[in-house]
Amino acid sequence: MTIPTTPAAPAPLLVVGSVAIDSIKTPFGVRERSLGGAALHFSVSSSFFTDVAVVAVVGDDFSHDDEAVFRERKINTDNLQRISGGRTFRWVGEYGFDLNTARTLDTQLNVFAEFKPELSPTARKSPFLFLANIQPGLQREVREQVDARFVAMDTMNYWIESSRDELLKTIAVVDALIINDAEARELAQEPNLIRAARKILTLGPSMLVVKRGEYGAAFFTRDTYFATPAFPLDSVFDPTGAGDSFAGGFMGYLAQSDKIDETTLRRAVIYGSVMASYNVEEFSCDRLLKLQPSEIRDRFHLFKDFTHFEI
Amino acid sequence: MTIPTTPAAPAPLLVVGSVAIDSIKTPFGVRERSLGGAALHFSVSSSFFTDVAVVAVVGDDFSHDDEAVFRERKINTDNLQRISGGRTFRWVGEYGFDLNTARTLDTQLNVFAEFKPELSPTARKSPFLFLANIQPGLQREVREQVDARFVAMDTMNYWIESSRDELLKTIAVVDALIINDAEARELAQEPNLIRAARKILTLGPSMLVVKRGEYGAAFFTRDTYFATPAFPLDSVFDPTGAGDSFAGGFMGYLAQSDKIDETTLRRAVIYGSVMASYNVEEFSCDRLLKLQPSEIRDRFHLFKDFTHFEI
Repeated sequence: MTIPTTPAAPAPLLVVGSVAIDSIKTPFGVRERSLGGAALHFSVSSSFFTDVAVVAVVGDDFSHDDEAVFRERKINTDNLQRISGGRTFRWVGEYGFDLNTARTLDTQLNVFAEFKPELSPTARKSPFLFLANIQPGLQREVREQVDARFVAMDTMNYWIESSRDELLKTIAVVDALIINDAEARELAQEPNLIRAARKILTLGPSMLVVKRGEYGAAFFTRDTYFATPAFPLDSVFDPTGAGDSFAGGFMGYLAQSDKIDETTLRRAVIYGSVMASYNVEEFSCDRLLKLQPSEIRDRFHLFKDFTHFEI
Repeated sequence: MTIPTTPAAPAPLLVVGSVAIDSIKTPFGVRERSLGGAALHFSVSSSFFTDVAVVAVVGDDFSHDDEAVFRERKINTDNLQRISGGRTFRWVGEYGFDLNTARTLDTQLNVFAEFKPELSPTARKSPFLFLANIQPGLQREVREQVDARFVAMDTMNYWIESSRDELLKTIAVVDALIINDAEARELAQEPNLIRAARKILTLGPSMLVVKRGEYGAAFFTRDTYFATPAFPLDSVFDPTGAGDSFAGGFMGYLAQSDKIDETTLRRAVIYGSVMASYNVEEFSCDRLLKLQPSEIRDRFHLFKDFTHFEI
């Protein structure tokens, strides 16, 4: 008789998306080589709430030192492919004094151009899945491999414009869309956000989270609505990754709670807002790597304080 | 012995500002002759909360029918001057699909060019005073005539750019500034709103209300902060007067409560948001003229519902 080996437990949360090397210029400084990518920002943020595993690809220019961020945050990298002789995804961007929108100066897909996500049997059992912003066909390939209880996704104007049909197929098979204001209007082809949301909720997802940068976030289901202002920051240093940190806080809190009811979802929107507010305080994920759990709780309570009024 | 006549009690709330005849074009329609002006929108809105008196000037093109709006809302017009042979202030404006900003096509000051506000002894005793958007020197003349307990004011980019010194003198003698996002940044010459607010609160006022259109409103004192999203509207018909309706709800509720504490001020921000949300649903003040007090209460409670989350 042989003793069966215990299979590893799946991480409660799985993310697929880019891990990148960014070059960023803001009015406050320049960083030539900065860790970035949606899956990196998402996983660092969500790691404060739950165990998270990342599905992505890097080249061999992604050094052992670069990987330290995953080790420090105990992020599972069993599904992080390393392509020998390949180059990691690169993004060069710039912000003006209006920090709400980035100007992309250069994007090099590199190893992402040929990426075929092949998930481990363990990863396929994660109950919460986030499809960060990548080519919608790739998002769907991953979605189909994972038997998740709750799936959310992000996207961007580029896919809305260039791969609309492909994108709509992916949107049809997720529970929640987490996108920004302009993307929601563009996707729905409707300037009024409330009507845009109503339209998006006919495409498949039962929930829509709209990220509004310095104006906060809104959460729609077919019969509920929740909105919050953003945390009042007197210095925004680098907005890169704010949206992914938001999604990380949102999904991390849901996976930690292992519940998907209105009370939990509203709190998740606030935790998303908290994580985004910390993320923008320094370059890359520098601020999150120093963050203490007590700081997350403090800012969560401040959200309550500054939005509360008596009937 | 003669029996002294009882002097009329002052209205709890007094407003000075423009009463205008507007021509407005929005993507949803055109109205050639529409009642407008900051003092008109403000007084209609605040009349749902308290008695209000208006200080303004009109020409004799402002008909008995035009005045019906004041009669219907029981707005005191003892201090509304009528200049015989004069023409009422005119504004011609247009909105695109982005309803956040109006394009001014024409402004004719007309009777406002020579306006010298002379307040009745009764009006001078109103405890709450709102200086709607007019030339800052005029605002100060009125402010100096009224022995008010609480004074708030609005202004616009035009005065910030053309009459900065004059404007700063007026700002120095009020308790609260109620302006929009862009005006706050421009006045403080600071792109970050939180730092802009901090700077503005060194200029005299102890409070700043920032109106953010579809993104809601923020309220700053030197040591407190409150923010709310806007009411989620699926159709915005005509944004003209939204800011003044907001100020009317805010000041009307304070005057009605006759209290200026944090709890009351936060509720006042919500009432302001409620009144603005109704105002934009139809041309001019058409919607407010049909509004029922129960609708104000309903929307106030909806604000609570859609911003509430559990700790």
